[in-house]
Amino acid sequence: MRIAVLGTGVVGTTLGTGLVRSGHEVRLGSRTAGNEKSLAWVAETGEGASEGTFADAAAWAEVIVNATGGLVSLEALTAAGADNLAGKAVLDISNPLDFSAGFPPTVAQPDGRSIAEQLQSAFPTAKVVKTLNTITAALMTHPRSLPGTHSVFVAGDNPEAKELAALLLTGFGWTDDEIIDAGAITAARGLELYLPLWLSLMGTFGTPTFNVSIVRA
Amino acid sequence: MRIAVLGTGVVGTTLGTGLVRSGHEVRLGSRTAGNEKSLAWVAETGEGASEGTFADAAAWAEVIVNATGGLVSLEALTAAGADNLAGKAVLDISNPLDFSAGFPPTVAQPDGRSIAEQLQSAFPTAKVVKTLNTITAALMTHPRSLPGTHSVFVAGDNPEAKELAALLLTGFGWTDDEIIDAGAITAARGLELYLPLWLSLMGTFGTPTFNVSIVRA
Repeated sequence: MRIAVLGTGVVGTTLGTGLVRSGHEVRLGSRTAGNEKSLAWVAETGEGASEGTFADAAAWAEVIVNATGGLVSLEALTAAGADNLAGKAVLDISNPLDFSAGFPPTVAQPDGRSIAEQLQSAFPTAKVVKTLNTITAALMTHPRSLPGTHSVFVAGDNPEAKELAALLLTGFGWTDDEIIDAGAITAARGLELYLPLWLSLMGTFGTPTFNVSIVRA
Repeated sequence: MRIAVLGTGVVGTTLGTGLVRSGHEVRLGSRTAGNEKSLAWVAETGEGASEGTFADAAAWAEVIVNATGGLVSLEALTAAGADNLAGKAVLDISNPLDFSAGFPPTVAQPDGRSIAEQLQSAFPTAKVVKTLNTITAALMTHPRSLPGTHSVFVAGDNPEAKELAALLLTGFGWTDDEIIDAGAITAARGLELYLPLWLSLMGTFGTPTFNVSIVRA
């Protein structure tokens, strides 16, 4: 598949590389085409990797991955262009962490809605799926580097887009029973509000290399 | 130990029963002594169980468990009396869920601080530990009713109070490696903000009988 990954930070480049390794073509999108980080990623990743503006990447792609910071995601996807998102699955990995008052950050959900819901409202024909925002970048694409079973969540209103997300996740090595359907797009609230716990645990463990596993009766 | 359990809802009575079964004396505290729910619990639980006002229970106890609703906890512990909490471990199980705008509820942290932090500020010599708020009542006292390992968190500023909480948890059947120290009392923010995810999962699973297990490298 042709996948646009919007955002050139650690999450974007790690996911981009993982998707190329899974056999997809990936275009890394950013505010300005040809920037240093994007070009370095393309050179390092090789065949299947390209880069461009948010709009270049989104227009070309069949699937969009939002790996921008949650506080700027609405702006980034607006720059990508509503027409370029229309009808496409948009995997939202973002976290709206507000560090303006220091650590620990707060989760910015000013009207009580998640970033994923805000994106879904702004781009109503896009098929937004919240996923992977609860896991450190390296584990997203290499889940087997933790021992045993652990969980990744998907939340969204479109079942086909959730299935597509699950397909991409299995390409990274996640097993079907590790992919937990958390429900409709409103469940993204809880997935974003999980971050303060994740950050506390990262602080006490001294590493981001951990995850939760859902245990059921 | 003599333990006051403040709150006569499902969480309070379940914990009260579990603590009596663990060999402790428990006094269930509520707004009014001799109310129907408290008397029924005492009759059902038998030896080791008593009831009284918030203040009766707290004055008598060596350890306090806050099992009132998070939105009224500050009021309940004020009624229990600052002098009756002074120097004692206060295990805070509460969740400040605000259902006033319907489902899903929001987590009420108006100034960004958790209920646990607000209690710690209001009663500075009490030793507040946030724990068990991430788990349905039946599992709190019967962790082995889920298969395999799963996790319970403790957060607080006083190491001895966290050790005491861990001791009570092991009495319910939690193993040492299942008890995760999430950090200082500020980590209670994340523990309370986890509830929307928990509620989403309860909705999709159709049962509250599940939990997370922390998986580390």
